[in-house]
Amino acid sequence: MKLYTYFRSSAAYRVRIALNLKGLAYDAVPVHLLRGGGEQRQPAYRAVNPGGLVPALTDGDVTLTQSLAIVEYLEEMHPVMPLLPQDAAGRARVRALALAIAADTHPLTNLRVLQHLTGPLGLTDDAKMDWYRHWTGEGLATLEALLQQGDTGRFCHGDTPTLADCCLVPQVFNAQRFHIDLAPYPTVARIHATCAEIPAFQAAHPSAQPDAE
Amino acid sequence: MKLYTYFRSSAAYRVRIALNLKGLAYDAVPVHLLRGGGEQRQPAYRAVNPGGLVPALTDGDVTLTQSLAIVEYLEEMHPVMPLLPQDAAGRARVRALALAIAADTHPLTNLRVLQHLTGPLGLTDDAKMDWYRHWTGEGLATLEALLQQGDTGRFCHGDTPTLADCCLVPQVFNAQRFHIDLAPYPTVARIHATCAEIPAFQAAHPSAQPDAE
Repeated sequence: MKLYTYFRSSAAYRVRIALNLKGLAYDAVPVHLLRGGGEQRQPAYRAVNPGGLVPALTDGDVTLTQSLAIVEYLEEMHPVMPLLPQDAAGRARVRALALAIAADTHPLTNLRVLQHLTGPLGLTDDAKMDWYRHWTGEGLATLEALLQQGDTGRFCHGDTPTLADCCLVPQVFNAQRFHIDLAPYPTVARIHATCAEIPAFQAAHPSAQPDAE
Repeated sequence: MKLYTYFRSSAAYRVRIALNLKGLAYDAVPVHLLRGGGEQRQPAYRAVNPGGLVPALTDGDVTLTQSLAIVEYLEEMHPVMPLLPQDAAGRARVRALALAIAADTHPLTNLRVLQHLTGPLGLTDDAKMDWYRHWTGEGLATLEALLQQGDTGRFCHGDTPTLADCCLVPQVFNAQRFHIDLAPYPTVARIHATCAEIPAFQAAHPSAQPDAE
């Protein structure tokens, strides 16, 4: 398998965690999101993913996009070390936690949106950071509230890592990178600390990638 | 089952289509997103969904949030009239199409974001509409490019409706509401027209809801 990735991409980071947790080997193909206006916007990468976003994963003839769809595919093809619970309600809870990050939080604060705010919209860097902190705070507060209900254990759902943890850790990495205080989100912070002890998560960390800067 | 819904909510609209395609009866519980500052932000609804977003679905003791997680749950509990293909690669493609809308497009243009642009950010209505058109256009262009590859048929994937169509139709409804020209997205427009002929889609349309205005 080939993973088109960027060390700091939150969505690629999710997939790296899932691959590592399942013990699946892959070749990393770095796509630099800033160099030359962004390699993800250039024809070579658009041929892989017309959406111009990382990650993408190729598995033989199959090309997959969208981090959550990729993890679901890995789960179906490689069910060892399951990243979804056995019961439908549990799976729905894990998917909802994942989507609270991957749909409701991260898309509002990713690179292309931040570039749009300071480019076409002409916002200052301070206003951009206010935006970042606002939506990240909303997302983490929702996540904290959701985690204070239901079957939260050592991890987001029970005592083994799931798709939800694959999303939580990169989101917290982003928050820390922009100096967002995690004190109001103690469950999120606790789960992040638990994951940070696990080699599969460590090996997926941006600083451990071949394209890290 | 009880569906917390708002007639014009794109995410609730997705779930209504899925319920109708599967022939599942439900009670609609309207949550007015504008009245009194938004009923979705008030404690009564936060007790159902701490994230303060519609939809939510209750099925007996289980409360579900996030439209895509809800549809996956319906699919697992009620496999008749499947909304995902039988093969893993096909399922990944359908989920990626759904996420191109539900994660990469709609969260950038939903009510709370538009309110944030004209509220705290102080943007004019014209600038807000530029934002709306920019991200909707990006999303529809990506969707069109993805649909020009792979197993697109009468619907987004093959010749029966899937989760991807449940997402496409509400996104096109939004685009039309804001007078976005669909001419650059002929495959999207064709699939939308096909869906519009189907009673399950018609019954889910905002104008057919008990809380329509």
